[in-house]
Amino acid sequence: MDAARLREDTPGCSGVAHLANAGAALQTIPVLAAVADYQQRESQLGGYEAFAASSADLAEARAAVARLIGTTAEHLAFNESGTLAWWRALGSMSLGAGDRVLATQSEYLGTVLPLRQRGIDIEVLPDDAEGSLDLTATARALRAGPRAIVVCHAASHVGVVNDVEAVGALVAELSPDTWFVVDACQSVGQMPVDVQAIRCDFLIGTGRKWLRGPRGSGFLYAGDRALVATPDPLDSNTGWLDEHGEPVVAPGIRRFEPWELSWAAQLGLAAGARYLADLGPEAVYDGIAARAEYLRSALATAPGVTVHDRGLASGGIVSFSHDSVAASKIVTAARAAGINVGVVAATAAPFDGPVRALPPMVRASPHVYNDETELDSLLRVVSGL
Amino acid sequence: MDAARLREDTPGCSGVAHLANAGAALQTIPVLAAVADYQQRESQLGGYEAFAASSADLAEARAAVARLIGTTAEHLAFNESGTLAWWRALGSMSLGAGDRVLATQSEYLGTVLPLRQRGIDIEVLPDDAEGSLDLTATARALRAGPRAIVVCHAASHVGVVNDVEAVGALVAELSPDTWFVVDACQSVGQMPVDVQAIRCDFLIGTGRKWLRGPRGSGFLYAGDRALVATPDPLDSNTGWLDEHGEPVVAPGIRRFEPWELSWAAQLGLAAGARYLADLGPEAVYDGIAARAEYLRSALATAPGVTVHDRGLASGGIVSFSHDSVAASKIVTAARAAGINVGVVAATAAPFDGPVRALPPMVRASPHVYNDETELDSLLRVVSGL
Repeated sequence: MDAARLREDTPGCSGVAHLANAGAALQTIPVLAAVADYQQRESQLGGYEAFAASSADLAEARAAVARLIGTTAEHLAFNESGTLAWWRALGSMSLGAGDRVLATQSEYLGTVLPLRQRGIDIEVLPDDAEGSLDLTATARALRAGPRAIVVCHAASHVGVVNDVEAVGALVAELSPDTWFVVDACQSVGQMPVDVQAIRCDFLIGTGRKWLRGPRGSGFLYAGDRALVATPDPLDSNTGWLDEHGEPVVAPGIRRFEPWELSWAAQLGLAAGARYLADLGPEAVYDGIAARAEYLRSALATAPGVTVHDRGLASGGIVSFSHDSVAASKIVTAARAAGINVGVVAATAAPFDGPVRALPPMVRASPHVYNDETELDSLLRVVSGL
Repeated sequence: MDAARLREDTPGCSGVAHLANAGAALQTIPVLAAVADYQQRESQLGGYEAFAASSADLAEARAAVARLIGTTAEHLAFNESGTLAWWRALGSMSLGAGDRVLATQSEYLGTVLPLRQRGIDIEVLPDDAEGSLDLTATARALRAGPRAIVVCHAASHVGVVNDVEAVGALVAELSPDTWFVVDACQSVGQMPVDVQAIRCDFLIGTGRKWLRGPRGSGFLYAGDRALVATPDPLDSNTGWLDEHGEPVVAPGIRRFEPWELSWAAQLGLAAGARYLADLGPEAVYDGIAARAEYLRSALATAPGVTVHDRGLASGGIVSFSHDSVAASKIVTAARAAGINVGVVAATAAPFDGPVRALPPMVRASPHVYNDETELDSLLRVVSGL
């Protein structure tokens, strides 16, 4: 990859060392252009008219995102956000109070909350000795035939990557009726994701993180079995009433794509997917993982610092705390030095937080456009605490 | 109002006669600038960082939308769309199978669908002799103490305006425990809306229609009682888990505003609200209603044409059909003449459509920036059929 070109393509690089890509990454010129171009079309033609005139572009946009995760547009719905994609998947599985659902120790607050609200019996799958999802425990729990299993591919609060392909193989072998849902919000754009290899029913993605798309964009992958499930609630694009007043669901993937979206943002998301595909997802992941490992290994030896990442693969998120300086103070000190990093509260990980007694942490998450100078500047801030 | 200025502020005016404002209106320069400005901030600062740096702007944006509907920011949550605002309101009312909910004859498909999906017993309130909501029938139905009443302020498929303030008075008098939900997607921005006078628990709005904001923006008003209800599902902004793993809802209006939105689009929506407030909502409604009435009265005498609007007030939507020319053909003919109008399928109005045996209709919806030349050009197309 051409390092200079990566930075030229990223206008924000000139003003800030943005090591907060797990929150919302800096957008590229092609992403910004796709968004602005569609807004221009809307302002000239009208909103519905621009949408109608752009149906080929939107179809190609869905196809571009689909290709990136190993599928076709017939399985890919644009959504307002990862959260809404999760809600639509959840509303399709007919889960109710007392149903048993497996979830990983690394699961994100936003995934867990609606399950708890509905009185679902969540069995938390432990991590193994290395620190990612314990596949032996997963196999044992799957044998009891749970209604669903929800797995975050890459955790949001610390660097932990779970082996979703191994989970898919276990589901297929041990409990094929179990719904398999993958939260890929922190993995798509960061590392190669292939739904054919994962064999999930639903995969949830967001635009703003590693894909470098706009805020307010996201998508839902739905496998063959998901395509005959009925989301609740439906909207005026995803369903209608028959002559007896009974709800009817739209055929195929349309059942998961709402009528009202910021289509500008979705086209930006697709531009992000294309940019990444051009670079090569393997090469991007190598670049991200190398930068994260550079930070991680230096932080591990910094006085007073504890790195909380673990697992066989840790990926691009580096979460750490300091014995005597609060995470929020470190973030402020970094900001003053022109560096963006984030704070993660332990509440964001409702299982892993209590189990590991995680403190508030600083989350650093480099992307391939970050250079060594930027990484070193963060390390200088930390060593100067 | 300065007619020339209204058109200068609207870049799309130069290319098209946009009489499709009930779908998505043409955006103004201030709206487009608010969106572009925030996108620039995100691309320079980072997504989360721009959000944090814009908290005062976003608070003022919520306040601007709130002022327009007679309330304060403590009651106003930005949402992805009117649909999502409805879903959050619905998820807060703890409605279940067999519960009775009143709805008007004019209700929109997207409002009705989730009620039907959940097995709710919908009592459809008839229109009166004039053609808007029958208040006598409403009073009678309220006396039986339904769980909720849902009223579309202005219908989406035809020109009909319901008297939501009268409904609010009836609810307060006859059944104060009944949830009162107003679908204002077709009224906010078109006509004055005052939640204090309406006395509703929830009011649902969208940015893209009469407010002239971007697609993918919307809002939810929540009254005092709504502010202590718990939406289902929650997300990571609207709730968390306590130390026992039980869901906790965020205090106040925050419970209704998601973590992930296109903040650019919401700021565009607020710019639309400010633009409208500067013009004066009464004057805007007078201008819209006069243009609609000009179309309606001319269409009523055009050979072969039937106008389907009714009610004491009809507002800015003019829906008509032709004896021998399909609505879709009329829309195509208008497009060829540089005019945007829309088609409404009767399925969009699942109660009114069958009751009145409505055919597919052409929907014309002028705004104050439309001039007489544009209205006449549509009338010429129709008279030439």
